[in-house]
Amino acid sequence: MAARAIVYENNGDPASVLYAVTLPARAEPLSGRSINVKVLLSPINPSDVHVVHGSYAVQPNPQKLNINGEEKTLYLPGNEGLGEITEVGPDVKNLKKGDWVVFSKGQSGTWSSAQVLEEEDVIKVDQGSGISAVNASTLTVNPVTAYKMLSTFVDLKPGDWIAQNAANSAAGQAVIQLARGRGIHTINLIRRKDDFAETERFLKGLGADVVLTYDDIPDEERVRELVGGKEVRLLLDCVGGQATKDTVRLASKGAHLVVYGAMAQEDIQIPPFLLVFKDIRVRGFWRTGWFNSSTLEERSQFLDELVQLMVSSKFKESVHEIVKIEGTLSDEEATLKVREIFGRVNKGTGGTKIILEVETRQSL
Amino acid sequence: MAARAIVYENNGDPASVLYAVTLPARAEPLSGRSINVKVLLSPINPSDVHVVHGSYAVQPNPQKLNINGEEKTLYLPGNEGLGEITEVGPDVKNLKKGDWVVFSKGQSGTWSSAQVLEEEDVIKVDQGSGISAVNASTLTVNPVTAYKMLSTFVDLKPGDWIAQNAANSAAGQAVIQLARGRGIHTINLIRRKDDFAETERFLKGLGADVVLTYDDIPDEERVRELVGGKEVRLLLDCVGGQATKDTVRLASKGAHLVVYGAMAQEDIQIPPFLLVFKDIRVRGFWRTGWFNSSTLEERSQFLDELVQLMVSSKFKESVHEIVKIEGTLSDEEATLKVREIFGRVNKGTGGTKIILEVETRQSL
Repeated sequence: MAARAIVYENNGDPASVLYAVTLPARAEPLSGRSINVKVLLSPINPSDVHVVHGSYAVQPNPQKLNINGEEKTLYLPGNEGLGEITEVGPDVKNLKKGDWVVFSKGQSGTWSSAQVLEEEDVIKVDQGSGISAVNASTLTVNPVTAYKMLSTFVDLKPGDWIAQNAANSAAGQAVIQLARGRGIHTINLIRRKDDFAETERFLKGLGADVVLTYDDIPDEERVRELVGGKEVRLLLDCVGGQATKDTVRLASKGAHLVVYGAMAQEDIQIPPFLLVFKDIRVRGFWRTGWFNSSTLEERSQFLDELVQLMVSSKFKESVHEIVKIEGTLSDEEATLKVREIFGRVNKGTGGTKIILEVETRQSL
Repeated sequence: MAARAIVYENNGDPASVLYAVTLPARAEPLSGRSINVKVLLSPINPSDVHVVHGSYAVQPNPQKLNINGEEKTLYLPGNEGLGEITEVGPDVKNLKKGDWVVFSKGQSGTWSSAQVLEEEDVIKVDQGSGISAVNASTLTVNPVTAYKMLSTFVDLKPGDWIAQNAANSAAGQAVIQLARGRGIHTINLIRRKDDFAETERFLKGLGADVVLTYDDIPDEERVRELVGGKEVRLLLDCVGGQATKDTVRLASKGAHLVVYGAMAQEDIQIPPFLLVFKDIRVRGFWRTGWFNSSTLEERSQFLDELVQLMVSSKFKESVHEIVKIEGTLSDEEATLKVREIFGRVNKGTGGTKIILEVETRQSL
C-alpha cells in the first residue's frame, strides 16, 4: 500500500501541469511526535488554482521526492481538508488513532491520500460534536474567515445588522449561516441576474434577512427602515472596485468595512467624505495571516467554538460534488482524471464545490 | 462706535454675494457669562469659500439682524481667528479684559470686528507663551488638524517616520513643522512642477526630511533605505484618487492611512492586497467633528500643548498678507474691498494666506 499525491513541477494551468504520483511505502515505524494522517476529503478552493498558477502570495514548500527511482523536486498543492489519524509516534500527547483532524499549516498538500506530519501540524476536530465530514473538510477556509471577521472588528450582539457583497460566494454563505447562528441579521448584495429570485430564495434558506442587487441599494433613510432603526456597523467586501463604493453606502457612522478579497481585481473605491465625515474605518482580513500569527492553542479553541456554533445552528453543507481518485487507477489514469476535473473547474462549476477523495494506491 | 461684519444673504461666489454691514451699537451692559470679543485677525481658509458657496457640510447659523432699520436674516461667515476680550459679564470665571482667545465653535462669524459671545464659545490662548498674533489667528484649523493627526492614530516616538501628500498645503506645512518639533521625520509628496527645487528648499527650511514628486516614489527597498530601516506607520492624505494609491506605497506593514481632505475630488483608490496582506488601516479625520465631540477642557488642554510646541519649535508663520478693512470706509466701500479680495482668492494667491483685519466702524 502506497500513498498517492497530486503534484506539479512547474507553475501553470492546473488542467495542464498537475499529475498524479505514487509515493514509495514508508519502511520505518513513526518516531517522536510524528503522526500518520489519512486524508479523507480535500476541497478545491479558488485560491488553490491561483497557487498552482503561481499567482498567489504563498506557495507550498518544494519537496524532494523519489518517483520511480528518480529524485524530483515537486510541489504538493491542496490547502484544506479533513484527515483521520492512522498511527501516532511514541511522544504524541493529544491525538490517537481514529481522531479527525484539519490542517493547521497552509499549503499542507492535502490533495493526497496520506501524509506523515508532526502533531502540531494538525488541529483535532471533535467528531462527537456531530459535524459532518464535508463540513469538517471545508472548515478552515470559509467558515473560519467568516467567523473570524464576525468576531474581530466590531463587538456584535444578537439583533445587530451587518452587510456583505458577493453574498452568494462560499464565504458569503458561511457569513449568512454563522451570523444567523449568533442572531445577527444580514443584508446581502448580489449581482443582477435572471435567476435573482432563485438566488434570493437560496440565501434566505440559509438565513439571509435581506437580499439586494447592487442596482437596488436604497437611500440612507430606506436602509434605516430596512434594519428597523438599528446600525450597520460591519460591512464585508470581497469584490473591490465600484462594489466597495456601493456596499459602503449601507454603512452607519463609525462602521468598519473589512476587505478580504478582490474578485473584481480592481482597487477599492471609497468617497473620501465617508471616511472624513462618517468615520468609516477600512481594514483588511487575511485568514492565512491570522492563522500563521496565532498560536496553535488559539486556533484550536477558535475551531472548537466554531464547530459548536455550526452544529448548534444546523450549518448546511456547501453545494458540492465528491470526486474520487480511485486507488485502482494507474498514475496515468489518475492524472487524466485530475486534469479533467480542473478543466471543469476552469469553466466554472456553477457554485458547486468539488471535493477530492484521493484513495491510497492499491496493488502496486 | 459700532461693529462691522461681513455677511451674505444667499449662497454663491464670495466675490459676488458677500457684503459689509454696520451693526447697531449695543446699549445694555454684559450679563451672566457673556463676553465681548474684539476680533484682531481672521484668515480666509479654502473651506470658508465652500461655506459661502453652500457646498460645505456645515453652514453658519442664520442670524436675524437689524440693518439700517430693516430686519434681515443673514449669515456671518469666518471660521477661524484671534480675538481679544474687551469686556466680561459678572459671572465669567476664567477670562478677563485683554486676554487672547480663539473660537471654539465652528462658523463663529470671525470676519467681523467684534462679537458678543458666551465664555464657553472661546478658548484662551496664553499670550505669555510668546506665540505671534498671526500664528494664534491661524491656530485652530491647520496646526490643530496636523497635531491631532500626529497624536491620535499611531503612537509616534522621536526618530519615527511619517509620509504625507500635498505637503506644500498649509496643513502639510504645519505637519512638517510640528513633526520636526517632536523629532519625527517626514516624507513629503508634491506635484511635479518647474519650481520643484524651490518648493523642496522651502519645505526643507520648515524641517522636511525628504521631498518627492508623485512620479519619483521609489520601490519598497529604496523606501526602506530612505528611512534608515525604520517603519512608515502613518500616512496623511488630503488629495484622494490616484494620489492615495501613490502615497500608500510608502506604507509599512500595519500602517494607518488617514484621509482628511479630497483636493482631487475623486474617490480614494487602494489596491485590496495592501489591506489584506499588508494590513493597511484606513481612517478619516475631521477637525470639526473632533472639536464638536470633545469637551471644552479637552480642547483647551490640547491647544495649550500645541501652542507650547509651536513656540518651543519656532513654528514659522504661514506666508500671509494682512488685509485691513478700515473703520473709516463706508459699508459700500468696504463691500467693494471685500469682493476685490475674494476675486483675488478665486484666482489663487499662490500659497499666500489672506488674513482679514476688520476694524470697528468709526464715526457713524
